[in-house]
Amino acid sequence: MKKMSGFPEFLPEGRMVEQAVLAELQRTFELHGFASIETRALEPMASLARKGDIGKEVYVVRRLHAPEGAPAELGLHFDLTVPFARYVVENAGHLEFPFRRYQIQKAWRGERPQDGRYREFLQADVDIVGQGELALHHDIELPLVALEALARLEEFGVPPAVMRLNNRKLSEGFYRGLGVSDPLAVLQRVDKLDKFGPDAVAAALREDLGMSPAAAAACLSLAEIKAPDGSFADRVRKLGVGGELLESGLDELGQVMESLAAYAPGQAVADLSVARGLDYYTGTVYETALRGMEALGSVSSGGRYDSLAADGKHTYPGVGLSIGVSRILVPLIGKGALTASRKVPSCVLVAVDSEASRAESMAIAAKLRARGIPAEVSPSADKYGKQIRYADRRGIPFVWFGAEVKDIRSGEQIAADPDIWDPPSQDLRAIVRTDA
Amino acid sequence: MKKMSGFPEFLPEGRMVEQAVLAELQRTFELHGFASIETRALEPMASLARKGDIGKEVYVVRRLHAPEGAPAELGLHFDLTVPFARYVVENAGHLEFPFRRYQIQKAWRGERPQDGRYREFLQADVDIVGQGELALHHDIELPLVALEALARLEEFGVPPAVMRLNNRKLSEGFYRGLGVSDPLAVLQRVDKLDKFGPDAVAAALREDLGMSPAAAAACLSLAEIKAPDGSFADRVRKLGVGGELLESGLDELGQVMESLAAYAPGQAVADLSVARGLDYYTGTVYETALRGMEALGSVSSGGRYDSLAADGKHTYPGVGLSIGVSRILVPLIGKGALTASRKVPSCVLVAVDSEASRAESMAIAAKLRARGIPAEVSPSADKYGKQIRYADRRGIPFVWFGAEVKDIRSGEQIAADPDIWDPPSQDLRAIVRTDA
Repeated sequence: MKKMSGFPEFLPEGRMVEQAVLAELQRTFELHGFASIETRALEPMASLARKGDIGKEVYVVRRLHAPEGAPAELGLHFDLTVPFARYVVENAGHLEFPFRRYQIQKAWRGERPQDGRYREFLQADVDIVGQGELALHHDIELPLVALEALARLEEFGVPPAVMRLNNRKLSEGFYRGLGVSDPLAVLQRVDKLDKFGPDAVAAALREDLGMSPAAAAACLSLAEIKAPDGSFADRVRKLGVGGELLESGLDELGQVMESLAAYAPGQAVADLSVARGLDYYTGTVYETALRGMEALGSVSSGGRYDSLAADGKHTYPGVGLSIGVSRILVPLIGKGALTASRKVPSCVLVAVDSEASRAESMAIAAKLRARGIPAEVSPSADKYGKQIRYADRRGIPFVWFGAEVKDIRSGEQIAADPDIWDPPSQDLRAIVRTDA
Repeated sequence: MKKMSGFPEFLPEGRMVEQAVLAELQRTFELHGFASIETRALEPMASLARKGDIGKEVYVVRRLHAPEGAPAELGLHFDLTVPFARYVVENAGHLEFPFRRYQIQKAWRGERPQDGRYREFLQADVDIVGQGELALHHDIELPLVALEALARLEEFGVPPAVMRLNNRKLSEGFYRGLGVSDPLAVLQRVDKLDKFGPDAVAAALREDLGMSPAAAAACLSLAEIKAPDGSFADRVRKLGVGGELLESGLDELGQVMESLAAYAPGQAVADLSVARGLDYYTGTVYETALRGMEALGSVSSGGRYDSLAADGKHTYPGVGLSIGVSRILVPLIGKGALTASRKVPSCVLVAVDSEASRAESMAIAAKLRARGIPAEVSPSADKYGKQIRYADRRGIPFVWFGAEVKDIRSGEQIAADPDIWDPPSQDLRAIVRTDA
């Protein structure tokens, strides 16, 4: 059977790696006081069909027997930020603000599958949303949480992360200072710098948007600026463009970068080429690459969105990042760089002497489980050699025979009581193995 | 904003209950040696559009910009069994059989929302699949695992479960013995007994299917038989219908019930009215009610499916059950019977004296987290009374001030070192609270 391109699925040993990674992410987010939520997979098309690049990639959903010609009203969410904003507005009366949440769910985009891009993918999002206002220090807190979460994955062999930051007010203020009326159009072209190179982007700015050669060149000069701290600001000012919005962006990004240089040295750089395709960002924006796996694209992206969520009474400004779990894990698990120490949770296979005595084996397994030791009973009363092979093929380290337990790796067999015996702690559960 | 009917979403305190329940289910399944897998949400329509009752409820999915008039090729899965069968066939060369897996994911059905029925719902499935053959003792093992998992939820205030069992060979053999040529059609009408009552079902059997009054009455007599063990068989035989398939069903259900009467006394009854709407079951079938919440319908259903999965070389017979997590939790959480001890994971709020000293508060929080204590830093340097109210509204039990920590419930404030201090263990994490 041919696999469906763009819809990755793991074998059990790969899924175990994913479970371990998700447990670490969840643990990090909860240590920082973020509460879990899940939102439904389907949203009204009206809230999904946005003006950014995403609109055309939405999967439309309808009931098979919906009336002929009825408009498509629902779609699968393409990220977790838009549904979260909807959830916040819908439940505002029951939430405490600033509201800190994480959300680990699949999202769907009907784009062409390629390395690092899937039609179904798992994301782990972490955000803070305020009511009416949200202090800038959260723009510092959130990337620190995301970087800490990614750092915890290094024990599993995930390469170290480097985050690149920019600020929409800075870019937009700069473009407006150049006389541009549609700064998002400029951003979307600058966003393709990595893909097409500076000459093609400059040409697009001139030809698609009618910018002067000098203005297009200034946009590229801005995009070339990189710094490990707040020192980018002077370089921007030297480009000779001014304005209130630009100064506001320079100030915000300066504060964020000075703090990140102190708290996460070497893990964050200001990079004024960072654009982010989505149109709902209004301030700080984040992108993150893994060292040596830069070609995958950003594994943790996000930003500040001041006007995504609003009801009649309030706006709900937010800031957050999304960790691309599938983007990180599918390649690493696929090439065998990450796997599990066994294919099943079972630590012990309880052998069966004959079908007539299966109940005795079930009782032994129940005793082991009651003490937290994962155990399964042999499905057949085959010769013991065959039952040992059953365990061996799955990586189950111990086989229980009547009143004895055998470590099938060493061959050592000892008398044991299922109410007392314990496996070595490193054998109790399957663990993640790296080829590193 | 109006909520979308049929798509339940929890507030953070409800989601915490769901997380605790899922952790217990996962723990139970893994103790029994079941490995986790996840399958993609989308399947080809060809494998979803079945002859059972489900076909018309499938949600069809297509790209927004798919070519006009292109056939709808994908749909959202309506259960986890059909995708699992596809996964088994697709990955058979990499799996060890019998293959034990659990799968906790959402599923979607476009049916009319009502109590216990949702358009998006979370299921926890546990199955064993063999290659070519699968021993009957797995038909005993699986309901024991599901009943153990449900029993673990009683500590959270979920009522005790009672499972009802039947066997498709028994029903089908009986109907064929009566001369019926389409036993599934009879099953689907008998399945409505609870809903419409015996007179309406008898009328439907006579009028829709042309059965004689005596044959229709015999079907109802069969459906009336209930027993806590294998004693149902004699009562079936007294109805005077015979045949090889019926005898095979009587034998299988007899063995399963005798074992369940021994291992799970009082938790399982043979109930020959159990039908299950899905057409892929071929042997044992299971339904489960919660005592006092019978109106919700079955919270754990499943059965034996001998021919759902097959490739050119093998068939992959399976047996399993699905626990309806949403069906159990949405009503209990919705009416406030289950909630969490606080609204956030944070055990400690670290107060902020002034924005200039925020870094000191961040350092204290980092020290607490490094020792596994969930901590967040106050979002504002407001007066301490306001920061305490911030903690109180979220149920955070401790507020940290400089070198002291205050239990805001008792008011007790003590000198404390963030490298040493520990909260009482019952305060470390949010726990599930019941109103019982």
